[in-house]
Amino acid sequence: MPELSEITTLGRTVETPASPEAAVIDVVPNPQQGTLFAARFVAPEFTSLCPVTGQPDFGHLVIDYAPDASLIESKSLKLFLTSFRNHGAFHEDCTVGIGRRLAEAAKPLWLRIGGYWYPRGGIPIDVFWQTGAPPEGLWLPDQGVPPYRGRG
Amino acid sequence: MPELSEITTLGRTVETPASPEAAVIDVVPNPQQGTLFAARFVAPEFTSLCPVTGQPDFGHLVIDYAPDASLIESKSLKLFLTSFRNHGAFHEDCTVGIGRRLAEAAKPLWLRIGGYWYPRGGIPIDVFWQTGAPPEGLWLPDQGVPPYRGRG
Amino acid sequence: MPELSEITTLGRTVETPASPEAAVIDVVPNPQQGTLFAARFVAPEFTSLCPVTGQPDFGHLVIDYAPDASLIESKSLKLFLTSFRNHGAFHEDCTVGIGRRLAEAAKPLWLRIGGYWYPRGGIPIDVFWQTGAPPEGLWLPDQGVPPYRGRG
Amino acid sequence: MPELSEITTLGRTVETPASPEAAVIDVVPNPQQGTLFAARFVAPEFTSLCPVTGQPDFGHLVIDYAPDASLIESKSLKLFLTSFRNHGAFHEDCTVGIGRRLAEAAKPLWLRIGGYWYPRGGIPIDVFWQTGAPPEGLWLPDQGVPPYRGRG
Amino acid sequence: MPELSEITTLGRTVETPASPEAAVIDVVPNPQQGTLFAARFVAPEFTSLCPVTGQPDFGHLVIDYAPDASLIESKSLKLFLTSFRNHGAFHEDCTVGIGRRLAEAAKPLWLRIGGYWYPRGGIPIDVFWQTGAPPEGLWLPDQGVPPYRGRG
Amino acid sequence: MPELSEITTLGRTVETPASPEAAVIDVVPNPQQGTLFAARFVAPEFTSLCPVTGQPDFGHLVIDYAPDASLIESKSLKLFLTSFRNHGAFHEDCTVGIGRRLAEAAKPLWLRIGGYWYPRGGIPIDVFWQTGAPPEGLWLPDQGVPPYRGRG
Amino acid sequence: MPELSEITTLGRTVETPASPEAAVIDVVPNPQQGTLFAARFVAPEFTSLCPVTGQPDFGHLVIDYAPDASLIESKSLKLFLTSFRNHGAFHEDCTVGIGRRLAEAAKPLWLRIGGYWYPRGGIPIDVFWQTGAPPEGLWLPDQGVPPYRGRG
Amino acid sequence: MPELSEITTLGRTVETPASPEAAVIDVVPNPQQGTLFAARFVAPEFTSLCPVTGQPDFGHLVIDYAPDASLIESKSLKLFLTSFRNHGAFHEDCTVGIGRRLAEAAKPLWLRIGGYWYPRGGIPIDVFWQTGAPPEGLWLPDQGVPPYRGRG
Amino acid sequence: MPELSEITTLGRTVETPASPEAAVIDVVPNPQQGTLFAARFVAPEFTSLCPVTGQPDFGHLVIDYAPDASLIESKSLKLFLTSFRNHGAFHEDCTVGIGRRLAEAAKPLWLRIGGYWYPRGGIPIDVFWQTGAPPEGLWLPDQGVPPYRGRG
Amino acid sequence: MPELSEITTLGRTVETPASPEAAVIDVVPNPQQGTLFAARFVAPEFTSLCPVTGQPDFGHLVIDYAPDASLIESKSLKLFLTSFRNHGAFHEDCTVGIGRRLAEAAKPLWLRIGGYWYPRGGIPIDVFWQTGAPPEGLWLPDQGVPPYRGRG
Ligand SMILES: [Ca+2]
Ligand SMILES: [Ca+2]
Ligand SMILES: [Ca+2]
Ligand SMILES: [Ca+2]
Ligand SMILES: [Ca+2]
Ligand SMILES: [Ca+2]
Ligand SMILES: [Ca+2]
Ligand SMILES: [Ca+2]
Ligand SMILES: [Ca+2]
Ligand SMILES: [Ca+2]
Ligand SMILES: [Ca+2]
Ligand SMILES: [Ca+2]
Ligand SMILES: [Ca+2]
Ligand SMILES: [Ca+2]
Ligand SMILES: [Ca+2]
Ligand SMILES: [Ca+2]
Repeated sequence: MPELSEITTLGRTVETPASPEAAVIDVVPNPQQGTLFAARFVAPEFTSLCPVTGQPDFGHLVIDYAPDASLIESKSLKLFLTSFRNHGAFHEDCTVGIGRRLAEAAKPLWLRIGGYWYPRGGIPIDVFWQTGAPPEGLWLPDQGVPPYRGRG
Repeated sequence: MPELSEITTLGRTVETPASPEAAVIDVVPNPQQGTLFAARFVAPEFTSLCPVTGQPDFGHLVIDYAPDASLIESKSLKLFLTSFRNHGAFHEDCTVGIGRRLAEAAKPLWLRIGGYWYPRGGIPIDVFWQTGAPPEGLWLPDQGVPPYRGRG
Repeated sequence: MPELSEITTLGRTVETPASPEAAVIDVVPNPQQGTLFAARFVAPEFTSLCPVTGQPDFGHLVIDYAPDASLIESKSLKLFLTSFRNHGAFHEDCTVGIGRRLAEAAKPLWLRIGGYWYPRGGIPIDVFWQTGAPPEGLWLPDQGVPPYRGRG
Repeated sequence: MPELSEITTLGRTVETPASPEAAVIDVVPNPQQGTLFAARFVAPEFTSLCPVTGQPDFGHLVIDYAPDASLIESKSLKLFLTSFRNHGAFHEDCTVGIGRRLAEAAKPLWLRIGGYWYPRGGIPIDVFWQTGAPPEGLWLPDQGVPPYRGRG
Repeated sequence: MPELSEITTLGRTVETPASPEAAVIDVVPNPQQGTLFAARFVAPEFTSLCPVTGQPDFGHLVIDYAPDASLIESKSLKLFLTSFRNHGAFHEDCTVGIGRRLAEAAKPLWLRIGGYWYPRGGIPIDVFWQTGAPPEGLWLPDQGVPPYRGRG
Repeated sequence: MPELSEITTLGRTVETPASPEAAVIDVVPNPQQGTLFAARFVAPEFTSLCPVTGQPDFGHLVIDYAPDASLIESKSLKLFLTSFRNHGAFHEDCTVGIGRRLAEAAKPLWLRIGGYWYPRGGIPIDVFWQTGAPPEGLWLPDQGVPPYRGRG
Repeated sequence: MPELSEITTLGRTVETPASPEAAVIDVVPNPQQGTLFAARFVAPEFTSLCPVTGQPDFGHLVIDYAPDASLIESKSLKLFLTSFRNHGAFHEDCTVGIGRRLAEAAKPLWLRIGGYWYPRGGIPIDVFWQTGAPPEGLWLPDQGVPPYRGRG
Repeated sequence: MPELSEITTLGRTVETPASPEAAVIDVVPNPQQGTLFAARFVAPEFTSLCPVTGQPDFGHLVIDYAPDASLIESKSLKLFLTSFRNHGAFHEDCTVGIGRRLAEAAKPLWLRIGGYWYPRGGIPIDVFWQTGAPPEGLWLPDQGVPPYRGRG
Repeated sequence: MPELSEITTLGRTVETPASPEAAVIDVVPNPQQGTLFAARFVAPEFTSLCPVTGQPDFGHLVIDYAPDASLIESKSLKLFLTSFRNHGAFHEDCTVGIGRRLAEAAKPLWLRIGGYWYPRGGIPIDVFWQTGAPPEGLWLPDQGVPPYRGRG
Repeated sequence: MPELSEITTLGRTVETPASPEAAVIDVVPNPQQGTLFAARFVAPEFTSLCPVTGQPDFGHLVIDYAPDASLIESKSLKLFLTSFRNHGAFHEDCTVGIGRRLAEAAKPLWLRIGGYWYPRGGIPIDVFWQTGAPPEGLWLPDQGVPPYRGRG
């Protein structure tokens, strides 16, 4: 279980990591360990690069998880997400990859991520991944992001 | 003033015109001539071609006008709009051009058109044209098309 | 000024008039005569017939007026609107015509009507008429009917 | 200018007045007197009786005013509005009458009231009254009550 | 089962408790004991302090429960929630902790709490906890809080 | 099974019952008996009294049921609900009590009621009750009442 | 399985049937027979008569079905629905009856109908019927009609 | 498993295919193969022709799938959808047919398509098809397209 | 004109001021001085105390201004607003007072504030103040806060 | 007036400019020169850096203008906006500066820009600038971006 003294970013001024690989996802001890509950992060300020054209991509990410011993520390999460600013990846790969990194760092009972990407060629892509079926008895509302609708 | 007997499409099966130039915009006598009022058409089923790439463009058009002697006949309006299906034009030109054609055909006291185009490169264009300031005393609600907002 | 004893429908069981011409629009004395205010009726249950095809048309009507000596009695208004059920008229004519009949009956300081018709051929028509510019100092919110948007 | 010691309801348990006539509308000194601003009350919990049938009517009231020496005290406003629970009045009369009573009590620079009534016979009535044109330089947003729309 | 005479706040003027620990959550006898139903409280007026920075946090709380012998008395609930005004706690801990306190006080058949927190660093946290799977046959709508969406 | 001749209110002018106990809930024969379906009533015009303070409470009620031999007659339902106007009851008790009375009167295969009450002390209460799990094969949409959200 | 040559209305000018009994519901061969899918019709232009008062009723109908050998032909559906214009029936009976007629005509694997009726006496009725539990593996979104909410 | 070198459209200027049959649906290797997740495409820019009248039809398509070895390449998807511009097909057939073509090309673990068509004769059709029940443990939000509602 | 070196809070860890009087509103030089434009702050995280009961009040504040030589520095604005947490004031006074303090500090060409308060006794208050009529040529959208609507 | 041959980006693969200064804003001849109309660009995919902390900022930009001899070419607009990705500027400065650059490049009759920035410290900033009062007779709808509202 992580110690508060090991947190790398909370309450400090920290540089944005140069790449997702360089980013550290901090966790803090879960004060409600042993209780089954879900936490949700919404990150509407996300951008990465298209791996083919190098042009910026924009996405709206929603992450749900059921913590075990650790909580994901939100400032390090923000820095981790910011580290994709100069990183190239396909939407499907990027979304699932972020979910995997968070799951590895926090070792939750369960985790899912929804990536809602801005349209390209008039067609947006949404990506939905979870580590498996949610635990029995976990309460988990829909992510509720409105679907793309074009104009009118 | 047009006669009902001159209407080219109402109540008949008519081919889609091959081009905007070939289309005829029918008008019918305005049974309320002398009364200042506005009529609005909403056309969410509009598509044309990009003059540079030849790819389809999609738009949502809203047309408001104050009739004088003639009303725009809605079936011929639909056929006129359908005639852009294989026609190439920039968004700005296409929108203003449709407005001009309708104004020439119906000779209204006043007319405006809003063209709300689907995003290209992540950025949609809206175009707003009117024949001039609306007549005094004309009641004219906003067109109320929601702005583009991306995702989230 | 009308007398309450002259009201033809209020508090009685009354047949739907056979036609708009046969309908009587009752008015009641305005208990706030001399005060400039507006009243709004919203009638989402309106249907008439297409004068060309005989098929039913559906509309959503919103009527605003500034009463003078008389208020429009709402039960007779409902019967008047119901009398269009078997009546054929173009959307533009029907909307403006209803506005005119109400203005003749109630002799208001000012009146307007918005007719928001269901789509035909994928294109709805809205019609906006008023007796003239609204009186100075009259407070009058937008009618706020959402524009047609197709699907998506 | 009223004194705080004259307030009849604030901070006390008070009976609902038996009728609108019996209700006292308290005012408090305006701590920003000399400053032109607007205050808005929204009262979605309003009910009165139909003067013809005795059946309950329901309304949603929005009141805007520009205070002069006095503010309308909100607890006494609530009791005043509650006093209509067993009172019969037509929608138009009731709305304008409430506006007048408040204007008499608070002697504001300007006041308006919007009454948004629940449908009867499928048709709701809205009533809009103001004491006159708003003062120059007063900022006053729309009341923004969504219009009735039936179903669908 | 609690007696009405034991209620500490209802119908009295009571000071806000100095801390969550000092707050008393009153319950009242459930007049429908033996009937399986759910009650929901929505508390959009909630604020606490960040345990690290001492800055205020804001949350929107929704609590659902299936009462057994007791109902949660809503005035004491309000005072309990108000007692967090000067209390520092992480979002996850605070939300689950409130749920636990209420469950201890009311001993319901089942209870859940959703905490919807305002964004920090551009990212809000939502927390979802329940005492276990809902009882069979309990009817329980979604909490329906719209997800955070940033701008646009 | 009830006879149409036994209906007490339909097509007649009837006084509002003095209390819920005095109200008669009429039923009519179900012309589709033997078919499993659901009917929903929405009653946004409901008010009762707080049993402690005597102040008016307001609620929005939604009732779903699967009829057996009888349909609930809607005019008597309206009169029954109106009879709470001078009746004092806690929100939880009032909501469940109305559901029980309707279930006793109509003896449906199944019934549920949702009571969505206006906020008191900044916190609204919603109450959800059903007679049991819905019958297999019954189609039953969400009641879809938007949650309270305060301001902003 | 029906032949295209047997279709009675498609591509022809056809009179509105005088009654629901006189209406013919055409079906066309299902080009995807053997594939389990759902089709939905939304009919916001529906009106019938109250069997007691003869006054018009308005409804918004949504029909979902899983076709077997036949598809419901939409022009004949429209004519069938139009045939209720002069037909009297209770809301519950009318909705379920339309569902039954369609199920008899198209012999689908499964069908449901939602009838969302305009308010009478301030209370609307919704009716939900299906032929049985939906087939395993059929994908079927909610009908998503917003609930009635009165005003405010 | 497809090779990137086999992709026919990505990063090239490519003509719109003359027909759906002529279109090639490219796939790319799934970098997250072995992970169960869903991807969603939303295509609000879709148009085809009515097979009977030759008039344009418009639809809003939403496609969800769980990739196996391949991802659907979005530029070729766009070209495939564009190829329906001069293609005639019934709504039900067209929607299910697109789903089938995509399933054949990408050989996903599972796929579904929702086709939300613009109204014809006042009645829109929605079509819902999936290859079977979704895999256990796949997370799949509703498509959330708002239902058609006519006007008002 | 202020110097950046005089800013008291930006880029530093600063205590919340003990009272509004103790708070310092920092300004920064306007890099676009001489250009007429508007800036808007939205502060949904605002709370103060009722001056009579000492209970917490919650408000949603929107501030628009046209800067002259100075911009309002947003971190000091946040601290200023936070300083009302333990301050008692009536809604009208509090809203106008905040506007005045900001106008004194930033000496803008023009400023307005909208205070949208949570309901008390079922009735919310909104307060609208501006320093005068907006400068000619300033572009200023509505604040667009939805009105209170109770439930349903 | 620009020549099409001078356009630097349209129909070519072009690198993102390294800075706003390095970006070229292309214009194309206005085919409707002499006609007063407005065009709107919406750019929800915008990001820059905070000049103090270096952290990313996100904004949603809406640009309206009345073209004279030139139209702003949308691909070069996109590249110009993308060039802010590694550029630091305050929200107020950045928004007005973009507006000025576009006005210099296109020399329109009139131009305005709205910048709607994501919240920092819980408070978003919106910035509104125009080159002056809009030309008489120009039709210009509201930009209609919904205000920030926090949670709930
Ligand atoms: Ca695009
Ligand atoms: Ca795009
Ligand atoms: Ca967004
Ligand atoms: Ca149509
Ligand atoms: Ca659309
Ligand atoms: Ca009614
Ligand atoms: Ca406006
Ligand atoms: Ca933030
Ligand atoms: Ca759902
Ligand atoms: Ca009604
Ligand atoms: Ca409708
Ligand atoms: Ca309250
Ligand atoms: Ca309240
Ligand atoms: Ca309401
Ligand atoms: Ca924040
Ligand atoms: Ca809020």
